[in-house]
Amino acid sequence: MSPVNSIADLRDIARRRLPLALFEYIDRGSYDEHTLTRNRADFDALLLRQRVMTDVSRLSLETTVLGERCSMPIGIAPTGLTGLFHRDGEIRAARAAHAAGVPFCLSTMSICSIEDVRAATSGTFWFQLYFMRDRTFTEALMSRAHAAGCPVLVLTLDLPLQALRRRDPKNGLAVPPRLTLKGMRDFILHPRWLVDVMFGKRRTFGNLATFFPRHGTAAISEWMGKQLDNTLTWNDVAWLRDRWPGKLVLKGILDADDARAAAATGVDGIIVSNHGGRQLDGATSTIAALPRVVDATAGRCEVLLDGGIHCGQSVLKGLALGARACMIGRSYLYGLAALGERGVALSLEILRREFEVSMALTGVCDVRNVDRRVLVH
Amino acid sequence: MSPVNSIADLRDIARRRLPLALFEYIDRGSYDEHTLTRNRADFDALLLRQRVMTDVSRLSLETTVLGERCSMPIGIAPTGLTGLFHRDGEIRAARAAHAAGVPFCLSTMSICSIEDVRAATSGTFWFQLYFMRDRTFTEALMSRAHAAGCPVLVLTLDLPLQALRRRDPKNGLAVPPRLTLKGMRDFILHPRWLVDVMFGKRRTFGNLATFFPRHGTAAISEWMGKQLDNTLTWNDVAWLRDRWPGKLVLKGILDADDARAAAATGVDGIIVSNHGGRQLDGATSTIAALPRVVDATAGRCEVLLDGGIHCGQSVLKGLALGARACMIGRSYLYGLAALGERGVALSLEILRREFEVSMALTGVCDVRNVDRRVLVH
Amino acid sequence: MSPVNSIADLRDIARRRLPLALFEYIDRGSYDEHTLTRNRADFDALLLRQRVMTDVSRLSLETTVLGERCSMPIGIAPTGLTGLFHRDGEIRAARAAHAAGVPFCLSTMSICSIEDVRAATSGTFWFQLYFMRDRTFTEALMSRAHAAGCPVLVLTLDLPLQALRRRDPKNGLAVPPRLTLKGMRDFILHPRWLVDVMFGKRRTFGNLATFFPRHGTAAISEWMGKQLDNTLTWNDVAWLRDRWPGKLVLKGILDADDARAAAATGVDGIIVSNHGGRQLDGATSTIAALPRVVDATAGRCEVLLDGGIHCGQSVLKGLALGARACMIGRSYLYGLAALGERGVALSLEILRREFEVSMALTGVCDVRNVDRRVLVH
Amino acid sequence: MSPVNSIADLRDIARRRLPLALFEYIDRGSYDEHTLTRNRADFDALLLRQRVMTDVSRLSLETTVLGERCSMPIGIAPTGLTGLFHRDGEIRAARAAHAAGVPFCLSTMSICSIEDVRAATSGTFWFQLYFMRDRTFTEALMSRAHAAGCPVLVLTLDLPLQALRRRDPKNGLAVPPRLTLKGMRDFILHPRWLVDVMFGKRRTFGNLATFFPRHGTAAISEWMGKQLDNTLTWNDVAWLRDRWPGKLVLKGILDADDARAAAATGVDGIIVSNHGGRQLDGATSTIAALPRVVDATAGRCEVLLDGGIHCGQSVLKGLALGARACMIGRSYLYGLAALGERGVALSLEILRREFEVSMALTGVCDVRNVDRRVLVH
Repeated sequence: MSPVNSIADLRDIARRRLPLALFEYIDRGSYDEHTLTRNRADFDALLLRQRVMTDVSRLSLETTVLGERCSMPIGIAPTGLTGLFHRDGEIRAARAAHAAGVPFCLSTMSICSIEDVRAATSGTFWFQLYFMRDRTFTEALMSRAHAAGCPVLVLTLDLPLQALRRRDPKNGLAVPPRLTLKGMRDFILHPRWLVDVMFGKRRTFGNLATFFPRHGTAAISEWMGKQLDNTLTWNDVAWLRDRWPGKLVLKGILDADDARAAAATGVDGIIVSNHGGRQLDGATSTIAALPRVVDATAGRCEVLLDGGIHCGQSVLKGLALGARACMIGRSYLYGLAALGERGVALSLEILRREFEVSMALTGVCDVRNVDRRVLVH
Repeated sequence: MSPVNSIADLRDIARRRLPLALFEYIDRGSYDEHTLTRNRADFDALLLRQRVMTDVSRLSLETTVLGERCSMPIGIAPTGLTGLFHRDGEIRAARAAHAAGVPFCLSTMSICSIEDVRAATSGTFWFQLYFMRDRTFTEALMSRAHAAGCPVLVLTLDLPLQALRRRDPKNGLAVPPRLTLKGMRDFILHPRWLVDVMFGKRRTFGNLATFFPRHGTAAISEWMGKQLDNTLTWNDVAWLRDRWPGKLVLKGILDADDARAAAATGVDGIIVSNHGGRQLDGATSTIAALPRVVDATAGRCEVLLDGGIHCGQSVLKGLALGARACMIGRSYLYGLAALGERGVALSLEILRREFEVSMALTGVCDVRNVDRRVLVH
Repeated sequence: MSPVNSIADLRDIARRRLPLALFEYIDRGSYDEHTLTRNRADFDALLLRQRVMTDVSRLSLETTVLGERCSMPIGIAPTGLTGLFHRDGEIRAARAAHAAGVPFCLSTMSICSIEDVRAATSGTFWFQLYFMRDRTFTEALMSRAHAAGCPVLVLTLDLPLQALRRRDPKNGLAVPPRLTLKGMRDFILHPRWLVDVMFGKRRTFGNLATFFPRHGTAAISEWMGKQLDNTLTWNDVAWLRDRWPGKLVLKGILDADDARAAAATGVDGIIVSNHGGRQLDGATSTIAALPRVVDATAGRCEVLLDGGIHCGQSVLKGLALGARACMIGRSYLYGLAALGERGVALSLEILRREFEVSMALTGVCDVRNVDRRVLVH
Repeated sequence: MSPVNSIADLRDIARRRLPLALFEYIDRGSYDEHTLTRNRADFDALLLRQRVMTDVSRLSLETTVLGERCSMPIGIAPTGLTGLFHRDGEIRAARAAHAAGVPFCLSTMSICSIEDVRAATSGTFWFQLYFMRDRTFTEALMSRAHAAGCPVLVLTLDLPLQALRRRDPKNGLAVPPRLTLKGMRDFILHPRWLVDVMFGKRRTFGNLATFFPRHGTAAISEWMGKQLDNTLTWNDVAWLRDRWPGKLVLKGILDADDARAAAATGVDGIIVSNHGGRQLDGATSTIAALPRVVDATAGRCEVLLDGGIHCGQSVLKGLALGARACMIGRSYLYGLAALGERGVALSLEILRREFEVSMALTGVCDVRNVDRRVLVH
C-alpha cells in the first residue's frame, strides 16, 4: 500500500472500505453543496506569511481549550452514526483522541452510548446534546453525561429541522430505509464492513436505546427527527445553563448578533459551525464567519471553529483569525472508516505535522502566539 | 427508481422522456448562453445568513400576490408549447398549481386554449399576452381571458423580435420544421411521448387555432413571428391599461429606467425577466437587476422575479432583495415532462420544502418578514 | 448538414476541411495564448442593458467608416495567407464583403495580389502595408495600392519582429517548411483542399511574387521576416503620411500614449489591435484597451477595434465603448475555409443578425446612437 | 520529433525520460500545491503594455548581477539531486549556463561535488549553502567553495525543517527508500536513464560524500535532514557574513520585515523565493511578494526572484516589479532531464527569445530600463 500522508489519502481508503450510502453520509452536504464547497475554498484562499530566521527548534503546540490541556489546538467534533463506520467507532475515536492528547466529543446520535465510551476509555470526553421536545429525556441525557464525568456539554443549535442531504435518500439512508438491489450489492461488496460492524453487537443509537430497547436504528432515527425541538430560544439556553454544572458550549453559531446573544448567556464557548455544510446551503463558510464572531464575543468566551479543516494549514488560519482550536469531523471519520483507531490517530498525526510545519515556516514557536500576523493581507 | 428530491432530478427524467428537440427547447438559451448561465450563477454567489435560537415551530409561507392569496411566494410562469411536453400540459400544470395554492399563468403560445384550461380546472389563472400587430386579435384574446375570469393579464415586453436559440434550428424546430433522420429516430425512441402527446387530440396553438382552424402548429408559429408588434411604446401600455379591467403586469423589465416608466403607467406589477436567458445574450441576470428595479418602483407596484429559480434557496434570495414572489419556468417544465401533473406538484413541493428549510435556518418565521437581513453582505 | 447559425459552427466545418497546419495557423495565438483568451473573455464579461418599449421596427445599421458608407459597422481585417485557406481566398472574401456592403482590407501577405483582387472585384478595398527595410519596395506597394484605387492604407505597427505561434513549427509551418509523415497524412486527408488550393494556380505571395518570380512561398516568407523594419518610429509615419494621398490608418495600437502620438501624426484612423493575440502574449485585450485609446484620441481620428469579435454582441459592446466599427479576422476566415465566398457571406450575415437583435433588445434603433448607455456598469 | 519551442515541451520529454519518482520530485510541490499553482497563476494575471514605434533593432539583454556580467537577467537556481536527472547533471548545467553567459548556482545537495564542477567547467559558479548544526562542516563547505573560486554564496533560509512533498513518499523517494514493484517497473522502463545515470559513476551527494565515504545517498539524505539547523537567527547571518569573503545572498525571503532585517545585515542580495512551492503551502507567490521586498530593501541590496518562471514573459514581469534577475529551477531541470546539456541550453534559449520578443513589443530596448511602465495597471 502506498504511504498515507494526507487526509485525502484516508478519504480514498474510506471510500473503498465503506458501502456507498455510509461513505456519502460522511462525505456529502446539503442541497447543491455550495456551503460545503465554500468551507474549504475560503480556507484555501487565505495566504500565509512565510518568515525566516526564527529559532524553531522548540515548537510548542500545547494549549488549553475550555480549561483543559491539549497537546495541540485540534479536537474531535461530535458526529452521528459514528459506530456504523467502524465497529465501536466512538470508542476507537475516543481512545485515539486520548492517546493524542486532544478532546473528543461524543454525539447524542452515537451508536456507542455515553456509558459504553466511559467504560472503554480512560480520559474524559465531551458530550454533545440535542435539545429534545421531551425535557425529561434531555435532562436524563445531561445526568448521564454528568455521571460519566463529561467536563463539557456542547449544545447544537443549527438543527431545529433537518435540511436535505440529497444523496442519503438516493442511497437508501431514508426513514424507513429501503434496501434496493443496488444497495444490497454495495453492502455485499464490503465484507470487512459487514463482519466488523453489522455482525458486531451494536447497531442502534446507544444513547437513545435505553429508552427504546426493542426498536431498531431506523425507528429511533425517525423518532429523533420528531423530537428535535424547533421552539428553542435563548431562554432555553439559560434553562440549560442553570442545570449543567460543567462547561457549556454552543455549536452552530455563524452570525455576529447570535454570537453576542450567546456570550450574554454566560456560556463558556462557541463553536462557529454550519454543520459541516449539511444544513443551510448558501450559508457563509465558517472561516469567513469566524472574525465577525470573535469580534462580537469580545473575549467573553472561547471561540472554536468547525468545518472545512482538511489540513494543518487550515488549523493555523483558524487560529490566526481568533479560534482557540479547530474541530474536525470528516477528517477523522475518513481515518476511522479507513483504518479504525489507527486511522483516527493517523488523521490527527497528519494534521499535527502539517500544522507544526506551517507554524515553523510562519516563524511562530508557540501556538499561543498565533495571531493575524501569520496571514498576508 | 431513485427518489426524486431536486429539480435536477426532474430534469434528468425529462431529458430521457422527451425527444431532444423538445428537451433543448426547454433547457437551452439564446446565442452563447451567457445570460442563461448568469441567471443561476448570480443566485448561487449570494450568501445566506444562518441564524439560531428562533422558535421556528410555526412557519408561515402564505402571502398575497397581486391581491390573491398564495400558499407560498412561487408562481408558474407562462411558457410556450407547454402542451407538447405532456398531453394537456397546460391543464395538468394549472391543476397542480391550484392544488398547491400558487398562481398559474397561461401563455398566448399555449397548446391548450384559454377555454380548455378554464373548462378543465376549478381555480382562476393568469393570462400572458403578446401584443399583436393585429389589434383586433389582441383585443379578442383579452376578451377571452376576461370571459374565462383571469384576474391578471401579463404583458410580455422583451420579445419585439425573436433572438436565436441556436439549438432549435439544429434540432429541426425551425419554421418550417424539417424532420431529419436523426430527428425521426429521436421521436421514435420516445414512444411514451408519441402516444401521449402526438396521438392525443391537441397538436396546435389553442389560443390561435380558433383563428386558423385548418393550419398546423408550424404555420401558426411562423405567422406569430410576423405578428409580434415591434413598434410598441409606453403609449401602447396605456392603451391596454384602459381596456383591461383586471390587474395588469409587465413582464421582461430589467432596467431601472424602464421600471420607472412602467410604474408610471399605473400597472399593478412588474416581472423582472430576461425571458429565461432566451433573448438578449449578455443581459444581466435577473437577481442582479432586481434591487435596481425594486428601488426604481419605490413600492408603486409589486415586483416579481423570473429566471434562474432552480431551488428554494433562490426564492429566499429573491424575496430578500425585494421580490414579492418568484416565477418558475424550466423548474416546473422539467416536472411536467418527467411525470405530468404529479411532476409539477413535485417540483413545487421540492421548492417549497427548500424554501421553508432555508427560511427557518435564517431565523424567519413569516415569509412577509423576509428582507435583506437574511443575506450576508 | 445541420443548420449553420454561429461563427462556432463555421469554425467546426473549417477544422474538418483544412489541413491541421492551416487551421491552427488561423485558430491559435502566440506562446501561452493568454491574450488570445482574454480577447474573448473580456468581451463576454461585459453586460448589456436590456431595454423595452422602444419602437424597433426601423433599425438602421448603416454607418460611415473613414468616410465610406457601410451597411453595418463591421469590416474584414487584413489576414495573411488567406488564399491558402480557399482558392482565390482574398478575391472570394472581397466579393462577399462588397456584396454585404462592408469594407475589405487586403494584406501585404496575401496570396492573391492587389491587381488580382482589383481585376476580379468591382468595389474598392483597403490595403494593409508592412513597412519594409527596403523603402523602394514599400513605395512600390503603395503605388500599386494607389493604382488599384484603394481609398485606405492600413499600416501595421505591432510586428517589428515576429512572436512565436508555437503550433506553427510543430505543424511544419516553419521556414523552411518540413513535410513530416503526419503532415503528409493531414494534407492527403483533405482532398477538397488539395484540389481546390494546391492544384489551383496561385501558391505564393502575390504582392511579393512580382519581385521574386522564381521563389516559392517559403523562401519569400523567410525574406519577409528579414524585411520587417524594426527601426520604425513616429517619424516614419510622417514620411508615409506625406506620400500616401488617401486615408491612413494605424493598426496595432493598444496604449493611450501611443494613441496620442498616433493622433498627433494626423492619421485618419487607429485600429486597436494586439494582432489577434498573435504577438505580445500578456498584452491586454483589445476591448479593455479601447476606452483608453478612445479617450486619448479625443475624437481626432476614428477608432476601430480588432480582436475577439466572435459574435454580434461583441460588435455592440465595441461600439458602446467608442469604436467606429469592428474588424473581423478569424470569424470570416472560418467561413472562407468552410464554405468559400458563401461562408464569408454567412459569417457576415450571422454577425449582422446578432448585432441587429442585440441593438433592438437594448433599445437602440440607429447604430450611430450606440454609446455607453447600452452597457450595465 | 516535433520541434521543441517551449518549456512545456521540455517538460513533456522529461516526463517520458525519467522514472516517475524523479520526474515528480522536480515537478510537484508541497501538500495541496496551492503555492506552486499561485507562483505561475500570479505571473499570468499580470498584463503587459504593448507599445509601438520604438526602434527595436538594437536590443540589449546584458546586465550585471551581483557585480558579474550576464548575457541576460536569468540565472540557474540551486536544485538538489540534479545529477540524478542526467549523468553529471550539475556539470552539464554549469557548462550550458557558462556557454549562455548566465550564472549557475550549485546546490549543497548536488550529486557532483564543488570540486567536480570546478574541474569540469571553465567559468565561475555560485554555491548554495545549507547552514548545518555542525558548524565545522558548514565552514568546510564554505572553504571548499572559496577554494573553487565561487564569487557568490547563497544561503537558503526557508528550510529550517522539511515540508512534505506528498508524492515523494508515494514514489518511494522516502528515507529509507523502498523499491516497490511499481517503482521497479518504472525504473526498468527507463533504460536510457538506467544506463546514463545509475550505471554512471556518481550516485551520492558529492559535497557530503567526502565526509561519509561509505554511505549511500539515502543515509546521507537522512543525516542531512537532521543536520538542518532550525535554531538560526539573524545573528547567524552576521557570523557567516564575517567568514565569507565573497558576495553573500539570502534565499527564501518573502516578507517585507524579513527583507529589512536581511538588508540590515549587509548582504549583497536577496532571492525572493518560496522554495518553488515546496515548503510553506499557502505562502504567497513570489511575484506577489516581490514589490514589498523591493520596497523594504530600498536599494540596499540586489533582489532576485525565484519561482514560477516558466516563460520569458515572466522574466519581464519580474524585472518590471524590481527584480535584478530571475532564477529558474524546474524550467532548466526539464531541459536537463530531457536532453542533457543541450536541453539546458535550449531552455535558456527559449526563455531568452521569449524575453527578448516581449521586451521589444513593450518598447524597451535595454534590459536596464525595464520598469513598472511595461505593465498595465
